[in-house]
Amino acid sequence: MILKRAVLMFIQRSQTIIDQEINPYVDQWEQEGQFPAHKLFKILGNAGFLGVNKPVEYGGLGLDFSYSVAVAEELGNINCGGIPMAIGVQSDMATPALARFGSAELKREFLQPTIMGDIVACLGVSETGAGSDVASIKTKAVRKGDELVINGGKMWTTNGTQADWMCLLANTSDGPPHKNKSLICLPMNLSGVHIARKIDKIGMWSSDTAEVFFDDVRVPCKNVIGQEGMGFTYQMLQFQEERLWGVANILTTMEKVVQETINYTRQRKIFSQPILYHQVVHFRLAELQTEIELLRSLLHRATALYIKGNNVTKLASMAKLKAGRLARELSDSCLQYWGGMGFTSDVLVSRFYRDSRLMSIGAGADEVMLSIICKYMDTLPKK
Amino acid sequence: MILKRAVLMFIQRSQTIIDQEINPYVDQWEQEGQFPAHKLFKILGNAGFLGVNKPVEYGGLGLDFSYSVAVAEELGNINCGGIPMAIGVQSDMATPALARFGSAELKREFLQPTIMGDIVACLGVSETGAGSDVASIKTKAVRKGDELVINGGKMWTTNGTQADWMCLLANTSDGPPHKNKSLICLPMNLSGVHIARKIDKIGMWSSDTAEVFFDDVRVPCKNVIGQEGMGFTYQMLQFQEERLWGVANILTTMEKVVQETINYTRQRKIFSQPILYHQVVHFRLAELQTEIELLRSLLHRATALYIKGNNVTKLASMAKLKAGRLARELSDSCLQYWGGMGFTSDVLVSRFYRDSRLMSIGAGADEVMLSIICKYMDTLPKK
Amino acid sequence: MILKRAVLMFIQRSQTIIDQEINPYVDQWEQEGQFPAHKLFKILGNAGFLGVNKPVEYGGLGLDFSYSVAVAEELGNINCGGIPMAIGVQSDMATPALARFGSAELKREFLQPTIMGDIVACLGVSETGAGSDVASIKTKAVRKGDELVINGGKMWTTNGTQADWMCLLANTSDGPPHKNKSLICLPMNLSGVHIARKIDKIGMWSSDTAEVFFDDVRVPCKNVIGQEGMGFTYQMLQFQEERLWGVANILTTMEKVVQETINYTRQRKIFSQPILYHQVVHFRLAELQTEIELLRSLLHRATALYIKGNNVTKLASMAKLKAGRLARELSDSCLQYWGGMGFTSDVLVSRFYRDSRLMSIGAGADEVMLSIICKYMDTLPKK
Amino acid sequence: MILKRAVLMFIQRSQTIIDQEINPYVDQWEQEGQFPAHKLFKILGNAGFLGVNKPVEYGGLGLDFSYSVAVAEELGNINCGGIPMAIGVQSDMATPALARFGSAELKREFLQPTIMGDIVACLGVSETGAGSDVASIKTKAVRKGDELVINGGKMWTTNGTQADWMCLLANTSDGPPHKNKSLICLPMNLSGVHIARKIDKIGMWSSDTAEVFFDDVRVPCKNVIGQEGMGFTYQMLQFQEERLWGVANILTTMEKVVQETINYTRQRKIFSQPILYHQVVHFRLAELQTEIELLRSLLHRATALYIKGNNVTKLASMAKLKAGRLARELSDSCLQYWGGMGFTSDVLVSRFYRDSRLMSIGAGADEVMLSIICKYMDTLPKK
Repeated sequence: MILKRAVLMFIQRSQTIIDQEINPYVDQWEQEGQFPAHKLFKILGNAGFLGVNKPVEYGGLGLDFSYSVAVAEELGNINCGGIPMAIGVQSDMATPALARFGSAELKREFLQPTIMGDIVACLGVSETGAGSDVASIKTKAVRKGDELVINGGKMWTTNGTQADWMCLLANTSDGPPHKNKSLICLPMNLSGVHIARKIDKIGMWSSDTAEVFFDDVRVPCKNVIGQEGMGFTYQMLQFQEERLWGVANILTTMEKVVQETINYTRQRKIFSQPILYHQVVHFRLAELQTEIELLRSLLHRATALYIKGNNVTKLASMAKLKAGRLARELSDSCLQYWGGMGFTSDVLVSRFYRDSRLMSIGAGADEVMLSIICKYMDTLPKK
Repeated sequence: MILKRAVLMFIQRSQTIIDQEINPYVDQWEQEGQFPAHKLFKILGNAGFLGVNKPVEYGGLGLDFSYSVAVAEELGNINCGGIPMAIGVQSDMATPALARFGSAELKREFLQPTIMGDIVACLGVSETGAGSDVASIKTKAVRKGDELVINGGKMWTTNGTQADWMCLLANTSDGPPHKNKSLICLPMNLSGVHIARKIDKIGMWSSDTAEVFFDDVRVPCKNVIGQEGMGFTYQMLQFQEERLWGVANILTTMEKVVQETINYTRQRKIFSQPILYHQVVHFRLAELQTEIELLRSLLHRATALYIKGNNVTKLASMAKLKAGRLARELSDSCLQYWGGMGFTSDVLVSRFYRDSRLMSIGAGADEVMLSIICKYMDTLPKK
Repeated sequence: MILKRAVLMFIQRSQTIIDQEINPYVDQWEQEGQFPAHKLFKILGNAGFLGVNKPVEYGGLGLDFSYSVAVAEELGNINCGGIPMAIGVQSDMATPALARFGSAELKREFLQPTIMGDIVACLGVSETGAGSDVASIKTKAVRKGDELVINGGKMWTTNGTQADWMCLLANTSDGPPHKNKSLICLPMNLSGVHIARKIDKIGMWSSDTAEVFFDDVRVPCKNVIGQEGMGFTYQMLQFQEERLWGVANILTTMEKVVQETINYTRQRKIFSQPILYHQVVHFRLAELQTEIELLRSLLHRATALYIKGNNVTKLASMAKLKAGRLARELSDSCLQYWGGMGFTSDVLVSRFYRDSRLMSIGAGADEVMLSIICKYMDTLPKK
Repeated sequence: MILKRAVLMFIQRSQTIIDQEINPYVDQWEQEGQFPAHKLFKILGNAGFLGVNKPVEYGGLGLDFSYSVAVAEELGNINCGGIPMAIGVQSDMATPALARFGSAELKREFLQPTIMGDIVACLGVSETGAGSDVASIKTKAVRKGDELVINGGKMWTTNGTQADWMCLLANTSDGPPHKNKSLICLPMNLSGVHIARKIDKIGMWSSDTAEVFFDDVRVPCKNVIGQEGMGFTYQMLQFQEERLWGVANILTTMEKVVQETINYTRQRKIFSQPILYHQVVHFRLAELQTEIELLRSLLHRATALYIKGNNVTKLASMAKLKAGRLARELSDSCLQYWGGMGFTSDVLVSRFYRDSRLMSIGAGADEVMLSIICKYMDTLPKK
């Protein structure tokens, strides 16, 4: 009981950090197309938010993943999508496999300072031409003595221009595509790592997104996380946390958008009554809130199953699919009720309209989620 | 642990009854537009299925409402919508208020034999011109000495032609519409009770639906359930169980329809491959299964909150709304993949297409659910 | 100008026939699962409605197809979907190829009495296992001397139990599936033609639908319409008229359903105002009426192009696709506003809800329409 | 015939101007948040594109409105939404009432140079707090001697920072809101006209949008267009052309987005086949193309009726409603198939995703269109 209260207080602390250290600067960071990752992550690291479910010996809090989900929900109160996404990469997307399968040495070198907020992490999975089709990536890591020599490139890398290290997925052999990959801890300051460009996006402006090229980059073989050849499997495991985290995060934002829309339409009149009081408006908002509660219920059910040790790939994929689609529908519907204001850059709803469009594309597009669900339903064509 | 296993075995027993006593006769009952309520309810009553969460002293099992939900899910395996609906009226729609607020005498007279399956219950709420707008019903029960004299009528009464008693909502005073109503245990064989007609419906054929008229029907005042004037409030409480029960029941049917559609389309070919292997088909089924899991998650969350004593009117209304809409969408989508067979009366999917349309209308139409949700969101126009 | 007025008067005459000879009997025919095709078609034939765009020398009116469309729209005023569909088979689905490509002898024997309403026609294309996939039908017509010997069967045959002849599509050789088929005028009283059963459907009750088997049925070779081997091509041409006719017909019915819903909801109150005056209701009806006008515009555009000699397969397929989907959406939406009454069999909206579901299945399912559209957009996978 | 060919050649000339004078600069103008209106309009004016259906004596081409629609469709080939919108304001939104009802003097002073491209026009209807509710605007023009003294302000004014004159709607008396307004030709360089700010929008970047304040602005009474007090009626007439023009314009852009998506997905592979060849992709594109053809058909039908002198407010409102909704749906759906590229600012589809969102808001929001349609359907609540 005491523990529980302590945890609640901890989670609520995130709100203070958001109010004092983040939201006042969001507009500026959105304008600049970047946020100060090292500075902000240090603040979050000090407060314990970057390793909620990570081992205590490496600086984590040792709580279960449901607390990471709770923190992700809190971070949804940040007034943009880019910052929480960047935090999520650091805390729950680039590190789960390392924490679970990495050697003690790798954890000391990469996990611990990431949790402490001393270094910035990124995740190198997507490539040009293999955005969602992870199995078909082309980046190669060829063993030469004690080193791996890496060639290829990564695309859509969140935190990519500021990161100190990348959790890189690369082909380490020529075997079948699900068994020839490894996850590798790759320092970004190595010779041959080129940040080709910062990608100009329609949303998530405060989060830098990079294209990265590898030109004979050499890294010690011991930087491979866990077992060589298990990278695809590890990444699939890692995706469960990434997807649940993303759903938790966007859930709060969606609720906030609905609430702000209620507040705005209550005070604005059209045809001599508040916009909110038009039946199509409050009924529509009730439908959207219903969908939010549905999604929240699935998220918590999947999380509860996950912390008991179940594979929740199917449920997590369903939640991710629904989150992406609902976010598009909800932001589009709510924006409408803001009238002309909704089309300006001055309001949260229009930022969310731009930012949230990524949810159906990143971390496995909707169509990939559908394929995964079909796989679990055993409805895919047999070859 | 032993208890839990016993309960599971009990619930699984329902499957046997369905397989042996119900499904073999469903086609016949659907044709006849009625099922033998007394005979079937006696079987279910003997097995304990009509009073899962009702007090042991009146023949119930004394379990919590989550077990009623579990049974409702099992009953979704019945091959039509009419029979489970009729059972639900008996077990969880006409009796919750009586079990909770009724006098010992009323419980002995009406609740116990209903739970035992010795008599058939119906619920008299809807009226012509006040289907979903419960507050505006017109049926009056006027006190004359120790008796109430009832005039008016009820519409859309499930089990109405076979029922032995009705849980009747009537105006017992002229006060404000939320405080002038009472629930009354009304024997159906009283003088002045007229079953006007069996309503011809597009679905739910095996369930009889009656229009009932009351012409100076006299019933003792002690037949009022709980406190006079509290009927509207009691009915709103009762609706929580009715709606959660309905959602649980239709959930299983929806899953069954998806599964049957998978089985059928796997073996039928079009354009030289199984229908199922067309991407639009298996993707669409994956979307529908996703929505089912979302709804299941909300149902279980609401149920868990309910058995802890919370008012879950908002969540139950959300679940009911979603269930109605999903059932329409799902049955329509699945039917499509059956081609011409889907348009015949020979398959479950077409029966479900007809039956499930009621979910958005009965027990409070979608628009009523939306109004309730809006009330809890505080977005309704202020007068 | 005089001509035009005469034509308008002619078209309006259909309304009299509908009001006097059809609508008064629709409920009865729906109950009986059949209508008196010979009797009704004779009335329609006498009045000229069965050969609007057919050659004058065979009893037709010699007008262009836009007049057939106008008549189809008028027939949408019949209070069910089954009768107009049966009429459409007779006038515009089973006969276009015969009228265009048939020999004078065949036209005298089959076309003329069909136009006059002396005999009843049906169209034999669909088969079990090849509902929408016309190219893969299995029925064979093998030449033996001057005769074709036919074996196989047809499914979903409208008018099938009452028809005097069938416009039959059969494989007359083993060539590639688009070049091995012929259309054949087949008298239904020949030895070896078996009407296996009348199919029990969820809608279109007044229209009989048969399964037909052919067991060594012998028909003279001269009964082949036009050129042998051109059957698939002819049927594709014939489908243009069938689909445009079907769209025209259902358009009027949809408009009628909207109008009846307006009338009903205007007089019924809920929450103390007419249902119609709730914003979600009149806005929704406005959306549906908008979709109706969109469809009407496309229908008339396609028809205008067609009578100028263009191939309108793409536009006709688009119209058919939209008609099927809109009919489902519109009937489902309107039914909702009828509350409990919508779930009874007493109202037009519930009959349309059952009947209209066929529009997305018959005459080429939605998925077939999509494939055709894709073919014209050149987006189908290359082999 | 010769005339027709000349007209066709004229319309096709627009393509040359787009290719040479517009599209090469669009990216730059989008970045700069403005385009050189005076320079570009002079080019278009010289070529005749700013007065297609305007009187020849004032520099117009004297063609009917269907040619304006044809030009609007051509302008949809511009690679953004902002420039065509700005052109449309100049050619078909700010000038129809002036051309139809204005005095010869006003036409010489304002219409002719607008058509010639010598001056830039804007339309002053929307205000803060009365975006779509035109009747409730607050800007006042009070007669003082021979002058009107104007106070108030306008919002969302396209071309507002560059315009030389505004077609201003203002209250010229205190009468009932549909009879107290006038349209006024207002030079923007008058004392008291303040351009408060350029509004920062989520799309339509190359088009400047201003907030304008009027502080005791004096304009001669003779600048009133037509009859004083008829402003609301004139604006409603003017809206017919504005809305049809907008639909025509966005139609081409939608078609272009579909076509670009086909091209892109044909060459990009996922799961070892072109994205386009996945059935959900080409089927979805076929559905969208179907909706485009439906909208085109309605547009042309409404235009044909309009040039024959009919009031097409209902059909134009339907077309506008559908265009707004389809544009949102289409851009969202197509963007999905571009994967990560769709989320970048480098592609037309993402620009259209941002730009097209305005269609459901500007020139009367969807909800206003629905109200208009309801008015014509006679389904609005009676007071």
